[in-house]
Amino acid sequence: MPTFDSVIYNASIITVNPDFDIIPDGVIGIKDGRIATVEARDVNPTLPSASERIDGQGGIVMPGLVNTHTHLPMTLFRGLADDLPLLTWLNEHIFPAEKTMLCPETVYAGALLACAEMLLSGTTCCCDGYFYEDDAAKAIAISGIRAVAAQGVIDFPAPGVPDPSLNIQAASAFVDKWQGVSPTITPSIFCHSPYTCSSETLKAAKKATREYDVLFQIHVAETKAEREHCLAEHGVTPVRYLANLGMLDQKTLLVHAIWVDDEDIEIIAQNGANVSVTTESEMKLASGIAPLPEFIKSGVTVGLGTDGCASNNDLDLFREMDVTAKLHKVNSCDPCVADAQTILKLATIGGANAIGLDHLIGSVEPGKQADLIIIDTNKPHLTPVYNLPSLIVYSASGADVRDVLVDGKTVLRNRQLLTSDVNKIMANVNRMRITD
Amino acid sequence: MPTFDSVIYNASIITVNPDFDIIPDGVIGIKDGRIATVEARDVNPTLPSASERIDGQGGIVMPGLVNTHTHLPMTLFRGLADDLPLLTWLNEHIFPAEKTMLCPETVYAGALLACAEMLLSGTTCCCDGYFYEDDAAKAIAISGIRAVAAQGVIDFPAPGVPDPSLNIQAASAFVDKWQGVSPTITPSIFCHSPYTCSSETLKAAKKATREYDVLFQIHVAETKAEREHCLAEHGVTPVRYLANLGMLDQKTLLVHAIWVDDEDIEIIAQNGANVSVTTESEMKLASGIAPLPEFIKSGVTVGLGTDGCASNNDLDLFREMDVTAKLHKVNSCDPCVADAQTILKLATIGGANAIGLDHLIGSVEPGKQADLIIIDTNKPHLTPVYNLPSLIVYSASGADVRDVLVDGKTVLRNRQLLTSDVNKIMANVNRMRITD
Repeated sequence: MPTFDSVIYNASIITVNPDFDIIPDGVIGIKDGRIATVEARDVNPTLPSASERIDGQGGIVMPGLVNTHTHLPMTLFRGLADDLPLLTWLNEHIFPAEKTMLCPETVYAGALLACAEMLLSGTTCCCDGYFYEDDAAKAIAISGIRAVAAQGVIDFPAPGVPDPSLNIQAASAFVDKWQGVSPTITPSIFCHSPYTCSSETLKAAKKATREYDVLFQIHVAETKAEREHCLAEHGVTPVRYLANLGMLDQKTLLVHAIWVDDEDIEIIAQNGANVSVTTESEMKLASGIAPLPEFIKSGVTVGLGTDGCASNNDLDLFREMDVTAKLHKVNSCDPCVADAQTILKLATIGGANAIGLDHLIGSVEPGKQADLIIIDTNKPHLTPVYNLPSLIVYSASGADVRDVLVDGKTVLRNRQLLTSDVNKIMANVNRMRITD
Repeated sequence: MPTFDSVIYNASIITVNPDFDIIPDGVIGIKDGRIATVEARDVNPTLPSASERIDGQGGIVMPGLVNTHTHLPMTLFRGLADDLPLLTWLNEHIFPAEKTMLCPETVYAGALLACAEMLLSGTTCCCDGYFYEDDAAKAIAISGIRAVAAQGVIDFPAPGVPDPSLNIQAASAFVDKWQGVSPTITPSIFCHSPYTCSSETLKAAKKATREYDVLFQIHVAETKAEREHCLAEHGVTPVRYLANLGMLDQKTLLVHAIWVDDEDIEIIAQNGANVSVTTESEMKLASGIAPLPEFIKSGVTVGLGTDGCASNNDLDLFREMDVTAKLHKVNSCDPCVADAQTILKLATIGGANAIGLDHLIGSVEPGKQADLIIIDTNKPHLTPVYNLPSLIVYSASGADVRDVLVDGKTVLRNRQLLTSDVNKIMANVNRMRITD
């Protein structure tokens, strides 16, 4: 009987453990989906026995990336409408497309495409919210990726929930159905925003997530207009509005949080609420720049996210790391801000922490689930190697990911997805294209 | 005798011609290194006879990307020092590394690596400047990439030119040697900056480039400190200082041009001088944000550049397009600014124009040289396809480039470099790594 189910060897390990240890030639033993040992090869030159040996080929093993904000089925709308004013984009393109296209079949197809894209670019866990989320969750389960998946709540007739008075009921039913069903899917509830959900809806949704002990998600302070509107209507900023409603705690994920002031940041920090920063999407929509360095300074738990494909237009967290680091350097006039190690933490353990899964994932440490990616560094743009975090953040891209394991199972091997037929997934989505 | 040397078929063509025509199912005929015909397949369903038929496999053919600012051998320093204050980075890391490492052999090896990386990411032409440029040019020639290559000029002892009084002589000798030698290499002279070259040096260098009728390049207005220093010393901005010396004309490329005011922009436009915008490097070094929308509005010819690998840290112009578009949207608070089509032009015909090669390259039009790239769109992150420029700018990356032709010759086929041995190139550079 072999000691481990699998061992990964012949690779440098970026552990992202509390000491940010890097092991130049490391060996990882995996048993029952978990990381059992993490060692330097020279400690024990003989590889332990294992059912499967995975040769890292001199590359890098690191925790799979954690994408803290997605709308998976929006892959359907990739490139449908770009370079437009926000309201034109939403009202004349995205909302009509959602109305025309969304149904269980398309949501499932779009989510499968998104999961394939994420696994192919090294993301092993995402935090999603959309409508018909039950069908998104089915796609997530098939793909083998790990996810926090949330049914969306909005006080308007929504895809799959035409009567908004039933929106909390629908979201609760989703959590009921998926809680405890799969080791890799954690249900959640996503309220669209403070301006599209009444205070009653917000409170009822948060109450439900407290009862289920699951994550509550909400877009907040995304645009200047939203902040001004909230100040005019409620006399307080969007963050304080949510705080006054008792919505902020360690199981709340605030998405975007761009238009926040120092007091907002302090309130977020004091309540232990979490923030998802979605830099590329925020840049593309010209929403603004979230105060990432200030969040970090104030001790706010932050993760990175790509947002949906209609506003990014991809799900590659490697690009997100690179752009986030560079944007905050130029925005602060300080090249030391958002250094590679800090950014790499945000995309792994930070994200895991922000969505409440840091006890399971986010680092390469014994006891954690084996959500791991192997980077092929034998490429011109990754040569030479001086500093691994710098190489990952500033030079690597999703296309450099060769192998991916989720929960100890290999889901991507030598860039071939083992869990689904990528050609069929692409053909399905192409068949659903909107044509004039 | 076949009509063409090669034909490319079964692909959509983004021509980047003056009408920005996109041909959904196009055929390109190539003869003697040049594009002979560009047609829709339905005009002539029978493919013309050709020695080689290149199947685009339903992907995209477009002009090869033009990188208007590189220091090729700086691949040697990729990841050597990041996230540091500018002067610490330069004085304590880059300059000492250059002093220790640079010699003809290392410059050649680093340049070969850079050329491989560029071809693998769809760049078919770069505009380079460095020391020992003769050895960089040899690497360029071997790789098959097209380039404007410049010997650097600086009023300090430099690698290969220990006596600065001989710097113009060395640069002129380089132009002499390479002018007219290769159809794909155009020599040039690169003065480092207005603060590291005296006015005499600047004037002598510009005079030499006028006599040879070649491009004059210079870093200018890169940092706020440079602008303030110039105002204090010369009483004018760096751009006006160069203008007063008679340096600005259609054969001058101003690199960075970040700290410029409206009058500077007007002067650049009136003199027909060109600008290379290197967004990612400028963000990473926190130098500032060049006024790209204002340059475009004023009619200044602009190209994109990656800068050297020590400050980016890659040479992928696809990423540069994406980040440039997004940065200017958020910086202008306007999502319509820097739209995909505009950005795609900057990275092709704009860049070609900025470095004086638009008569040869930058678009897919009969009569131009066949510098072409084929994108494999059969990938999850490039599905579905609604808008080709948007797909290229916001979703594609260098790793999606399958085939590359320069001057009609295939140099990359199915991601295999045909002109050099990539493994040997990487091994050479790894061997040269600085170790403590």
